[in-house]
Amino acid sequence: MKSFASDNYAGVLPEMMEALQRANIEHARSYGADEISARTTRLFREVFETDCDVFFVFNGTGANVLSISAATQSFNSVLCADISHIYNDESAAPETFTGCRFFPLPSDETGKLTPDAIQQRLIRKGDMHYAQTKLVSITQATEYGTVYTPGEIRAIAELAHENDLYLHMDGSRFFNAAAGSGLALKDISSAAGVDILSLGGTKAGMMFGEAVVVFNKELARQIAYKHKQSMQLASKTRFIAAQFEAMLKDELWRTKASHANAMAQLLQKTLSQYMQVTITKPVQANGVFATLPREWNKSLQELLPFYIWKEATNEARLMCSFDTTADDINAFGKAIEKLAGKKA
Amino acid sequence: MKSFASDNYAGVLPEMMEALQRANIEHARSYGADEISARTTRLFREVFETDCDVFFVFNGTGANVLSISAATQSFNSVLCADISHIYNDESAAPETFTGCRFFPLPSDETGKLTPDAIQQRLIRKGDMHYAQTKLVSITQATEYGTVYTPGEIRAIAELAHENDLYLHMDGSRFFNAAAGSGLALKDISSAAGVDILSLGGTKAGMMFGEAVVVFNKELARQIAYKHKQSMQLASKTRFIAAQFEAMLKDELWRTKASHANAMAQLLQKTLSQYMQVTITKPVQANGVFATLPREWNKSLQELLPFYIWKEATNEARLMCSFDTTADDINAFGKAIEKLAGKKA
Amino acid sequence: MKSFASDNYAGVLPEMMEALQRANIEHARSYGADEISARTTRLFREVFETDCDVFFVFNGTGANVLSISAATQSFNSVLCADISHIYNDESAAPETFTGCRFFPLPSDETGKLTPDAIQQRLIRKGDMHYAQTKLVSITQATEYGTVYTPGEIRAIAELAHENDLYLHMDGSRFFNAAAGSGLALKDISSAAGVDILSLGGTKAGMMFGEAVVVFNKELARQIAYKHKQSMQLASKTRFIAAQFEAMLKDELWRTKASHANAMAQLLQKTLSQYMQVTITKPVQANGVFATLPREWNKSLQELLPFYIWKEATNEARLMCSFDTTADDINAFGKAIEKLAGKKA
Amino acid sequence: MKSFASDNYAGVLPEMMEALQRANIEHARSYGADEISARTTRLFREVFETDCDVFFVFNGTGANVLSISAATQSFNSVLCADISHIYNDESAAPETFTGCRFFPLPSDETGKLTPDAIQQRLIRKGDMHYAQTKLVSITQATEYGTVYTPGEIRAIAELAHENDLYLHMDGSRFFNAAAGSGLALKDISSAAGVDILSLGGTKAGMMFGEAVVVFNKELARQIAYKHKQSMQLASKTRFIAAQFEAMLKDELWRTKASHANAMAQLLQKTLSQYMQVTITKPVQANGVFATLPREWNKSLQELLPFYIWKEATNEARLMCSFDTTADDINAFGKAIEKLAGKKA
Repeated sequence: MKSFASDNYAGVLPEMMEALQRANIEHARSYGADEISARTTRLFREVFETDCDVFFVFNGTGANVLSISAATQSFNSVLCADISHIYNDESAAPETFTGCRFFPLPSDETGKLTPDAIQQRLIRKGDMHYAQTKLVSITQATEYGTVYTPGEIRAIAELAHENDLYLHMDGSRFFNAAAGSGLALKDISSAAGVDILSLGGTKAGMMFGEAVVVFNKELARQIAYKHKQSMQLASKTRFIAAQFEAMLKDELWRTKASHANAMAQLLQKTLSQYMQVTITKPVQANGVFATLPREWNKSLQELLPFYIWKEATNEARLMCSFDTTADDINAFGKAIEKLAGKKA
Repeated sequence: MKSFASDNYAGVLPEMMEALQRANIEHARSYGADEISARTTRLFREVFETDCDVFFVFNGTGANVLSISAATQSFNSVLCADISHIYNDESAAPETFTGCRFFPLPSDETGKLTPDAIQQRLIRKGDMHYAQTKLVSITQATEYGTVYTPGEIRAIAELAHENDLYLHMDGSRFFNAAAGSGLALKDISSAAGVDILSLGGTKAGMMFGEAVVVFNKELARQIAYKHKQSMQLASKTRFIAAQFEAMLKDELWRTKASHANAMAQLLQKTLSQYMQVTITKPVQANGVFATLPREWNKSLQELLPFYIWKEATNEARLMCSFDTTADDINAFGKAIEKLAGKKA
Repeated sequence: MKSFASDNYAGVLPEMMEALQRANIEHARSYGADEISARTTRLFREVFETDCDVFFVFNGTGANVLSISAATQSFNSVLCADISHIYNDESAAPETFTGCRFFPLPSDETGKLTPDAIQQRLIRKGDMHYAQTKLVSITQATEYGTVYTPGEIRAIAELAHENDLYLHMDGSRFFNAAAGSGLALKDISSAAGVDILSLGGTKAGMMFGEAVVVFNKELARQIAYKHKQSMQLASKTRFIAAQFEAMLKDELWRTKASHANAMAQLLQKTLSQYMQVTITKPVQANGVFATLPREWNKSLQELLPFYIWKEATNEARLMCSFDTTADDINAFGKAIEKLAGKKA
Repeated sequence: MKSFASDNYAGVLPEMMEALQRANIEHARSYGADEISARTTRLFREVFETDCDVFFVFNGTGANVLSISAATQSFNSVLCADISHIYNDESAAPETFTGCRFFPLPSDETGKLTPDAIQQRLIRKGDMHYAQTKLVSITQATEYGTVYTPGEIRAIAELAHENDLYLHMDGSRFFNAAAGSGLALKDISSAAGVDILSLGGTKAGMMFGEAVVVFNKELARQIAYKHKQSMQLASKTRFIAAQFEAMLKDELWRTKASHANAMAQLLQKTLSQYMQVTITKPVQANGVFATLPREWNKSLQELLPFYIWKEATNEARLMCSFDTTADDINAFGKAIEKLAGKKA
């Protein structure tokens, strides 16, 4: 089976399997006290060009919840986009673990939070009846497959910091965002004012594992305790670290994410040929959003499954991954051609 | 490096690496909806000879916390041994996620809870001022490396069930316990009255992954929601399931756990030769507890690290794993011989 | 000082002081096991004409949080109005204590939730990634001082129950709502399908105390334990019960709430005389919402303080209470006359 | 009915009723922003001779949970006596609201924690697997009716502070302790190194209300937010403050608590006359613990109810309150005389 359903339907990059094999020698200290974890943390610091702290975790929800808990007290509130993953797709895990309230903000048509939207909610500071806002969380690439520019991030970071808030970035597709913008990892995170980053590994081709990267030392004080407490501390941490090491080395992530992004561009181009199809969001990373005739769903999904993001308009989300091929897309194109009759 | 520090210092069994490789083909549905997960769940049902539900999770703390949360409400209390992992080594994760109180009970000299100890705490039922006890948690093999017999488990299960409590088993070394007793997995779990089991994979030689096995259907109702909410739902679940499939198939677990247990017996035998050393607990699984002269610690730990379990008496805990060899133990024995002067 | 700021600026009704005096004889069993509490619970059952359970609590936030916790598990979500008290004015207490997510729904121009708005959020049932909706919470009277009709409540209750949700009513001004509609207490609660009610006493003229009234027996099972656990169980419960007894007897609540409501009508009439003032919400209970010239704020607030509900339009909220007098309102009217120059 | 069951069976002191009456004039700002609350806070500062912060709350569990939450993070643990109220009688409220683990320590025969017992648990600092201890909680007067001396408190405070822990005092019977020792309130709290105090009002004769008194400014930073979040912020706070004002003025508390304590001494003397009765704890406040023949329970409890503290030895707890009279005790004595046959 191949699929456009999610980049987490894909398996594991061969380079990751090799890294796992290489890490599998003898004994190593557990819970992150091993050599590979230490060395990979140093590599993070080189890549992000700052003295960041790195905490390897199991999955994206874990990364987000740990990040949020590092930046908040239980009487705080968090501002996030109404379409964000932490608001819609992580059960009540953020509330249960942190105790905080989450205020959804309207995102713009490209799925981004804007300083204006945030400014509207910067209210009632010091009022004990109101869950005091302490964190803004943005997603990079966004749930719509768009990418915040360094300037956009910086504007949000400045607004946050002026108001004594922290800025969290949910980067489950952070590598795709960096590849899509052609920038360095730091350009859209540490150097743009992000305080703490959930850096996604699984959707990028790892077997499992994400990293919480802490750029703001204030947030690093107690996070080690919360790391364990949030059930995200792996005993054999080296097997997460080793995958990140391979991913960061010589920018392997860029090669792989650029491929997925290129496949999304090809898919967009293919879909655009048909007048029955409308591309609904700018394609800036590895996802394509498009409305298509409802009666096409069945046969297309049998070929290559995808999600209907919005039922009302039959807007589909089609995700490309490191192993999506031009052949996959051509096959999809041919199936559409058959359904559409002729090109636009 | 080799080590007696913990069985989680070991790497990954070759059979697990192969299973991971085999699972790495094409795309698969995420979050446990894949074929390997379904097939492995069926295998669990065959092995435990009951219609259990299986939830694959990342680590032992996650398995325990999810199990406890499935069996409790936030106004409940849990009875566990004073030396148990959930009481000493999982931060406040159990409280933070479940809200419950944990009452430590004195364990007997072999590290086991007894019906008598439990009976003492079966108090104040229906009293709203008292956190209502709803769960007993026991560890198999215990933190002292001993193994509950089916009869011992059944006695606790009966007492629990008579009092409207559930019985949880923390089985981070469950395979070692089963191998040590020469019994089937079900004999010391489902068939003995356990309601929910944390089945450990990592210490048995997996790269990562444990399973929550739910024998009591009452506990299965809402656990799927808590699975996600507890940040323990892997997107690429197939890579946990595949390891368990390989482990359960033809009782690979028994071969590997029996080896680790045999090494513990050899280590015990080796240590017993020296009058300066006293074996302090029955060796029934893969751990050896022994007091030894404090001045030996440094040189022995340089050779093969281990933990001092109890400072006061310099009682060491030495854990064997699937890759411990007779050579390791002989080297350890020789080092002791050098320190001890001569055998007892 | 008198004030329109909030009905909780008022003191205690003389009838309540007398009830407190009467209750202050000899010793009584603590924690609600006393005679007055038992007798008052029976009175609730007569008044609501149903076999409800009654839990006396300290304050409105406690009543709401206890009610919500009785109806949810930590992986659930709650639907409430975007302007509701539980969403804006109770810190993160609801999340911290229940673990649940709260989804704000747009209220209509009168501050009410509609079945349509609720229907939009009845999504993703059974999807473990989504905090499963289990409760709808409405406010009676609403934060805008309007009152749900029995038909409106019933429509919401039916929608909720069809979808396996419970219906909670935040009734911090429930007596004003009942007085305003001229109906019996049951008509706008138990008989209209409400499952659990936070019945406010403090704003109605009690010194302290609210009641959680449980109409749905499913919610009564474990609430006694949560009552204590939520820090809302008074040792000298009789002093809350005694006030409710006096309030319910011969419908004292109606006399007092009708007076406050009548004062709101008088205030509305007074304000309506000036073309510079616009009444913005229907006046159906004891609150008046009106826009007025910003430059009037200072001198009017010195006379009788009130809140500016919406800064942008200088919309004021003026709350009347049991002890608001026609003289208070006339004085306010005269001050306006002086500012306005002449009547409309 | 009169009773020895608990000091919370008593009603309300006439002086408290008068204070409530006096406070009931006109309108006052809600949530503690009123004049009486401000003035009472100043009175606390005079009495404790330090710039403390005061938070009025509803009940003892609320006071304790708020105090603990002010001093901890969710990955922390709390040390308390095995017999303490927070460990046995507050459901799982402390865990649910703070997320922390509670470690029970053996109390000495008089119900006190000792520096030695605390020292035993000062372990594993910096170990992320272990819930990091941050708070010691002691009870004054203890659950056995004994009173810590200033020296005993100071020794615990010093040990706590040396180890970077805070010291909390559960003072639900703090006035009885101060009266019993003949000392000033500050001598057994602020001046002895206590960081935060739950000061009980209800058992001392108030209708409702306790105060969290914060002596350590580090703990005052965020507690105002937690005050609301813990559902302990009263809208009509003035009615709690007014009672404390009356209680503190001219040391009314001492007059009332000394009476209760004197009644306990009289009760002890009365009981000691019978050879069948053994006083089991030093009587230093308002409680008497004594073993008596089991066959006496029924008739004595019909006269004046009391609790059997320990079933095994039929050890009774008899609490005196501000309204216990010599006549009550003489009647109890006569009943015993009838049962005992003759005095010892």
